[in-house]
Amino acid sequence: MLELAQSLFLKACRREAVPRPPVWMMRQAGRYLPEYRAVRAKVDFLTMCRTPDLAAEVTLQPIDILGVDAAVIFSDILVLPEAMGIPVTFEERGGPKLSRRITGAGDVESLIPPDPASDLRFVGDAIRRVRRSLEPRGIPVLGFAGAPFTLAAYMIEGETSRDFTRTRRAMHADPPLFRRLLGKIADAVGQFLRFQIQSGASAVQIFDTWAGLLGQESFRSFALPAIARAIDAVKGLGAPVILYVNGSAQHIESMAQAGADAISVDWRVPLDEVRRRAGDAVAIQGNLDPSALYAPPDRVRELTAAMLARHPGPGLVANLGHGLFPDTPVEGARAFVDTIRQWRA
Amino acid sequence: MLELAQSLFLKACRREAVPRPPVWMMRQAGRYLPEYRAVRAKVDFLTMCRTPDLAAEVTLQPIDILGVDAAVIFSDILVLPEAMGIPVTFEERGGPKLSRRITGAGDVESLIPPDPASDLRFVGDAIRRVRRSLEPRGIPVLGFAGAPFTLAAYMIEGETSRDFTRTRRAMHADPPLFRRLLGKIADAVGQFLRFQIQSGASAVQIFDTWAGLLGQESFRSFALPAIARAIDAVKGLGAPVILYVNGSAQHIESMAQAGADAISVDWRVPLDEVRRRAGDAVAIQGNLDPSALYAPPDRVRELTAAMLARHPGPGLVANLGHGLFPDTPVEGARAFVDTIRQWRA
Repeated sequence: MLELAQSLFLKACRREAVPRPPVWMMRQAGRYLPEYRAVRAKVDFLTMCRTPDLAAEVTLQPIDILGVDAAVIFSDILVLPEAMGIPVTFEERGGPKLSRRITGAGDVESLIPPDPASDLRFVGDAIRRVRRSLEPRGIPVLGFAGAPFTLAAYMIEGETSRDFTRTRRAMHADPPLFRRLLGKIADAVGQFLRFQIQSGASAVQIFDTWAGLLGQESFRSFALPAIARAIDAVKGLGAPVILYVNGSAQHIESMAQAGADAISVDWRVPLDEVRRRAGDAVAIQGNLDPSALYAPPDRVRELTAAMLARHPGPGLVANLGHGLFPDTPVEGARAFVDTIRQWRA
Repeated sequence: MLELAQSLFLKACRREAVPRPPVWMMRQAGRYLPEYRAVRAKVDFLTMCRTPDLAAEVTLQPIDILGVDAAVIFSDILVLPEAMGIPVTFEERGGPKLSRRITGAGDVESLIPPDPASDLRFVGDAIRRVRRSLEPRGIPVLGFAGAPFTLAAYMIEGETSRDFTRTRRAMHADPPLFRRLLGKIADAVGQFLRFQIQSGASAVQIFDTWAGLLGQESFRSFALPAIARAIDAVKGLGAPVILYVNGSAQHIESMAQAGADAISVDWRVPLDEVRRRAGDAVAIQGNLDPSALYAPPDRVRELTAAMLARHPGPGLVANLGHGLFPDTPVEGARAFVDTIRQWRA
């Protein structure tokens, strides 16, 4: 039996020497896989999230189909707002809708600190099932949560948005209230990540999907302290924390200061520049443009090799710079994964 | 009569010493002004663009109401695709819709090289009217066009998009065809900018709204050569060219190599870092977060002063990092402009 702690993925998170970088892909359990669509055809998205057998089933699919080095639990960042008292629905088009919006101090105060062991038990159960299946093969499973800023943005907008002007107005018009909201969410995120680690996740990732909207100063002043607070809550549990920011080009130096073990960057900045700016105290995860997987497989292999060549040293977890698009050709994803699995620096 | 060439704005574009930076705001002729909404209440958006008297009227509004140092002609970047054979409609919600999408080589070949003097005559007429009104006051008027990548993205998607996957797929799946499309648009942009300068624009701005989606290599390989080709077409006409990219954090060094006289950056990177990375051969325009104008006016003044303090030397055109939001409080915009007008470095 392979030791999880000696898996390529966890070694790379600790910046230990590995024969090749480990690889997984954000949204690797997703619609681009026919096997996923077959499961999804029978139930809606939220039912899949809330049914541990189904969540575990699709979580495991890319392990065997593509040979990735880590599983990431199938779930959604909006299960946490729901556990805080804001029900969410997913529409086939148009994305998630929250049942109400945070518009003032009363709404912030009324948010419920979640009890993951009851409210989010389905996530823990799914993680346990996946771990039971993968631990004998030495493959770790990751848990995750949305970052406080991103969850606050959804709570304030009530849905996705192009410019997130309600959120940015709230931040600029009443900074103390906005910080109170972020703090409350940060505590919930910390609790939720703890729970996932205790349920069997070997590592956790924090997704800041919208912090790329922020300038450097707003990120440092609002988003980053809340992230650090959530990370603090899981320190000492032995599970690496990965911080992902979409739109990370201006935030790389700050991300490296968050207390995360690894920073996960989008495709906009090449890995050599990311490493130079992040310093040597963190692992780096990334960062092929997910739209590069639309290219012919030979070209995907070239682009993947070029990406790997930019980070020859230890401390790299190969990944995309953002989640797989639903219409990604499977052969593109396969060319990406295979190139990394065959890589010898 | 003040000489236009000696205006604060044109001097700053040439990086000459000025007593204070000039200021204008992207989308300063827009819905946040009650005076604009009064005009707009009578006609639809495209009719305003196509009626020189109305376009000139709203272009002039912020000059007197806010005291900005330059006018920017009221128009839309999608008037150019229309002149190339793709009619556009604007819906009250959901943004622009193009009547057809570019899906293959045949669509690219069928694009018509526009004849601005007939197809876009309304833009020239509006610029002439504004210039007639402002030249005696020594205030220049800017023309503008969309950047080739951004216009290609609209033509391929047919509307706005969150991830622009059709565009990115086209770029990765068939690079030569994508470059042919960009080249055709670049020539049209060059012609259109020439026409605006010949109609009286003292400077022109190229808007690359979506190039922030690109990584550094894709930007250099696709977007930048097309921008440079458009800029080449107006070299020697004596009108500075400003290159704006939204999502510019990873592109600052490249933008400085485009051949533009000034680069206009979003709010994500502070001006001292922008200057350091851009070098001294270009003017810099920017870059307050437009959502900062939601803050109380005293706070807007603080943030504006902090922005100016980061770029004490010559070669700064004060602006926002993106267009004004329609619900921006006028007092926020006024606090921004007033702080710059009263600035003494």
